[in-house]
Amino acid sequence: MTREELIKQIFTKKTFLCVGLDTDIKKIPQHLLGGEDPIFAFNKQIIDATAKYCVAYKPNLAFYESMGVKGLVSFEKTINYLKGAYPDHFIIADAKRGDIGNTSTMYARTFFEEYNIDSLTVAPYMGEDSVVPFLQYEGKWVILLALTSNKGSHDFQLTADQSGERLFEKVLRTSQKWGDKNNMMYVVGATQGKMFEDIRRIAPDHFLLVPGVGAQGGSLEEVCKYGMNKDCGLLVNSSRGIIYASSGTDFAQVAAAKAAELQQQMQEELEKIR
Amino acid sequence: MTREELIKQIFTKKTFLCVGLDTDIKKIPQHLLGGEDPIFAFNKQIIDATAKYCVAYKPNLAFYESMGVKGLVSFEKTINYLKGAYPDHFIIADAKRGDIGNTSTMYARTFFEEYNIDSLTVAPYMGEDSVVPFLQYEGKWVILLALTSNKGSHDFQLTADQSGERLFEKVLRTSQKWGDKNNMMYVVGATQGKMFEDIRRIAPDHFLLVPGVGAQGGSLEEVCKYGMNKDCGLLVNSSRGIIYASSGTDFAQVAAAKAAELQQQMQEELEKIR
Repeated sequence: MTREELIKQIFTKKTFLCVGLDTDIKKIPQHLLGGEDPIFAFNKQIIDATAKYCVAYKPNLAFYESMGVKGLVSFEKTINYLKGAYPDHFIIADAKRGDIGNTSTMYARTFFEEYNIDSLTVAPYMGEDSVVPFLQYEGKWVILLALTSNKGSHDFQLTADQSGERLFEKVLRTSQKWGDKNNMMYVVGATQGKMFEDIRRIAPDHFLLVPGVGAQGGSLEEVCKYGMNKDCGLLVNSSRGIIYASSGTDFAQVAAAKAAELQQQMQEELEKIR
Repeated sequence: MTREELIKQIFTKKTFLCVGLDTDIKKIPQHLLGGEDPIFAFNKQIIDATAKYCVAYKPNLAFYESMGVKGLVSFEKTINYLKGAYPDHFIIADAKRGDIGNTSTMYARTFFEEYNIDSLTVAPYMGEDSVVPFLQYEGKWVILLALTSNKGSHDFQLTADQSGERLFEKVLRTSQKWGDKNNMMYVVGATQGKMFEDIRRIAPDHFLLVPGVGAQGGSLEEVCKYGMNKDCGLLVNSSRGIIYASSGTDFAQVAAAKAAELQQQMQEELEKIR
């Protein structure tokens, strides 16, 4: 999906919500467990219930891999279902990959050829040749970790170098030599509120994928205040706050209601810029 | 596997070689392609031919994932074969994972419970809570990226902070608050030769996993000179230099010869310390 197509989806549907499919067999409703593929059954109902309120889905690979081959089958079925039933939704494989060049090339082949997914989260620690192989695909995206939403983000990401530049800022600046606003986004945690001002100084036009609204405590209003640009420039993810909002047979309806609530808030934010 | 068991293996077998199973369907010998599972067939022959010359195997997840479900089946069969036929070999899943706490917990479950592998490579960018979930398993290891062997390692890993400490040094120092020499190793690329002196100042006792000997140009002698400690403290990996040394029907014999050559050099190095 191109940047223009994504922006069009956002303003047409009046939402920049991404629903995180962190589907855990230990957390899905009991009544699904008897079926042949409970993980896919859960995802399908969540997707059907929330599709009109969001522009993107983000399956988190860890949750599928933890179930071995069976989990990977559920992942593939989820991707195929999305591509068939909701081809206008942007798909993010949240995998946080990144390795030496020939290995990153293999990962790129997996996610962009084998699964034909729109984008992949990538970790920056290994530098240029670990990221560039993912940038060779027309219409595909790298979503590079910059400033994450977890407590451990303080351990290394905020360390300033001798010129005062912090590591996440160096990642933002350096990576702009490798890709641009048309094939690269950044992960910036919602829990880092005012930091969005610093990020927008370095990357004014890039889309930011923002986890941490909801379960991790970030505020949507604050994210928009400091992080939005004229094209919106945000994909805000919510996982647990939507998909596990109810553990009963009504889980899909409750997920829809939670997603609708966020869509409504997002519509208000979008009206401020267009 | 405990640290003592690993050291015992190294001095008994007189080798600290790790064979990297970066098995690529596009690179394995033609004559295997007709079989039911060429990837596993290749791995099995490589393992049988090299087992007596090495103490560890390191399948690189990217290569298996790039083939989807089928690749994961080959990976599982490889792990099961190793655990059955060569239970004294240390297994490293080279996956370079690392995510927020609840996701890292899922990855830990995958590799340490589902696959029951000894160790996993982990990326440090997201800090403490992305690493700690992997340290909760008795006899299991985190192998944290410190200074990698690729060109991109210069982009961020060598950046010095305001006290002059470089990022890879900060990773070495900080992570010692999370784990110790009994459950944590570090990835240090062989191409970084003299840097091993700096690393040993901060982490004198930890095992180091050293990729980059061979295809990537690192020298075994230099690595040993600067990186070895009294317990050896090194696992030196070779992937392409062994497994793709011949693309004919003799690939396994040639791989064995290459592994034997490295084992011989390693024996000489080990004799210098004991």
